[in-house]
Amino acid sequence: MSEAPRHILVIGIGAGDPDHLTLAAVKAMRRADVFFVLGKGAEKDALTRLRRDILDEHLTGPYRVVEADDPWRDRTQRDGGRYASAVHDWRHRRADICERLIADELAPGETGAFLVWGDPSLYDSTLAILDDIRERDTVAFDHEVIPGVSSVSALAARHRTTLNRVGRPVHITPGRRLAQGYPEDCDLVVMLDGHETFTHLVGGGWWIHWGAYIGTPDEILVSGPLDEVADRIGRLRAEARERHGWIMDTYLLRQGWDGPQGASRPAGSADGSADGPLG
Amino acid sequence: MSEAPRHILVIGIGAGDPDHLTLAAVKAMRRADVFFVLGKGAEKDALTRLRRDILDEHLTGPYRVVEADDPWRDRTQRDGGRYASAVHDWRHRRADICERLIADELAPGETGAFLVWGDPSLYDSTLAILDDIRERDTVAFDHEVIPGVSSVSALAARHRTTLNRVGRPVHITPGRRLAQGYPEDCDLVVMLDGHETFTHLVGGGWWIHWGAYIGTPDEILVSGPLDEVADRIGRLRAEARERHGWIMDTYLLRQGWDGPQGASRPAGSADGSADGPLG
Ligand SMILES: C[S@@+](CC[C@H](N)C(=O)[O-])C[C@H]1O[C@@H](n2cnc3c(N)ncnc32)[C@H](O)[C@@H]1O
Ligand SMILES: C[S@@+](CC[C@H](N)C(=O)[O-])C[C@H]1O[C@@H](n2cnc3c(N)ncnc32)[C@H](O)[C@@H]1O
Repeated sequence: MSEAPRHILVIGIGAGDPDHLTLAAVKAMRRADVFFVLGKGAEKDALTRLRRDILDEHLTGPYRVVEADDPWRDRTQRDGGRYASAVHDWRHRRADICERLIADELAPGETGAFLVWGDPSLYDSTLAILDDIRERDTVAFDHEVIPGVSSVSALAARHRTTLNRVGRPVHITPGRRLAQGYPEDCDLVVMLDGHETFTHLVGGGWWIHWGAYIGTPDEILVSGPLDEVADRIGRLRAEARERHGWIMDTYLLRQGWDGPQGASRPAGSADGSADGPLG
Repeated sequence: MSEAPRHILVIGIGAGDPDHLTLAAVKAMRRADVFFVLGKGAEKDALTRLRRDILDEHLTGPYRVVEADDPWRDRTQRDGGRYASAVHDWRHRRADICERLIADELAPGETGAFLVWGDPSLYDSTLAILDDIRERDTVAFDHEVIPGVSSVSALAARHRTTLNRVGRPVHITPGRRLAQGYPEDCDLVVMLDGHETFTHLVGGGWWIHWGAYIGTPDEILVSGPLDEVADRIGRLRAEARERHGWIMDTYLLRQGWDGPQGASRPAGSADGSADGPLG
């Protein structure tokens, strides 16, 4: 391996609104010789289209995109250890594909880019895959990460609320883990929830800020006391999923909070900040 | 209050790197008639300078900035309830100032902007203050939030690591709360830590990714097993704080993890993803 190293850019592109792209992301895109896109199914089609739109808008010359199909993933494993090993197994096969993309589609000294949904640091496997490939020591490359606006920040912005309350933690969790419990006294952000896990918390005095397809023309937002809006979210979610063939949604749960200013909120409970129900 | 409403834009500008500005933030800045800046001391000077640089770079015409001094804040209260009420009290006085800025410096129908460090949803009081002012019902305004790249995303990107491990939660906490305990089986992100609280965790098998002044020319990064690098971080932190007169730092703590690829990491523990020590 005495060739010039290949360069890899891992670029966060925001979670749906093309204007959530950063100036650094645009500059990085302009340095890339090739763009790699992995995905599968209806979700892939939609997300790939957004990536293409972004490239068309910000690159002046022609550009090269290499698409690859995501390997099949075992989604039947839901418990802790098996879930993690199913994900690892899938990542390993994704790494095989990416290794080939880097070795075959990129000449030594060239720069390839992965356009990562949202922020690359949150529930995205690109960085783990690159570490995996580097461990194999089969193709030399260096890599750089450009952070992005996550769907979590986008959710909070659309609801004009903060994630945390004064001095308190924020707990970001996959839906699967929420079902198993959560720490006290935190605001909770739930991602990757295919099972409307919020329904488990009905009756506990929670406020929810929910959003689907945030930042896209299909965006749906609902906020309110969980007990009052859970059914409506469930209905909207099912309809939207049916219509699009896939869904991405995220929500913030806050316990013992009476909602935004005025309304039913007692004087002196000015803890937290939020908008009224938007959706 | 039959006047046209005033418009307020709450714009996340990233946490230090001017290129972390989003396209949406640039567009929003161009819609503003006035920019409001609150702050105090050496920290304010540095952060105000960065905001001015951003405005100079992206606005073509002249622009109007109104600066106001932050009210005094009681930083002696550290326990839960007193801390929160000291913060609330301070926010209330900040709200008085902001109310005056909006009423006096903005004509009805005009647009004012707050340039918020990082992402407005994380440990920032601007949104709570606006809710507070709205509750008073003294000046009519609407507001919109433009999310930004947080210092948390910037930290992860510079270390080329994810915040979460496969299928696991991420717990974002103020340093003050970390000292009181933390949930099991999560990766921890610590902000607002004036007291090197990570030293409490030495001996627990943690890996730390630490960063100060991330994204600025003064950036310092250190990563490694906490037990090995804690002293060095403490030293670098004290020196930097002395030199600048203020410091902002954030870190990620991961327990039971042997660091990035290769090295001392046993085969099969490909959980998580990270770079080697950078700093
Ligand atoms: C594989 S994770 C990727 C997260 C991404 N890296 C980020 O920073 O937002 C996918 C999850 O992110 C959330 N998500 C991503 N984009 C979203 C959007 N536009 N609206 C709502 N949720 C979104 C959903 O919870 C979805 O299940
Ligand atoms: C009042 S909070 C504001 C956070 C901001 N809204 C964000 O999204 O990053 C300030 C804390 O953010 C962190 N922080 C902000 N900017 C930083 C930077 N450039 N480098 C390291 N930490 C930073 C530090 O933990 C600091 O104590």
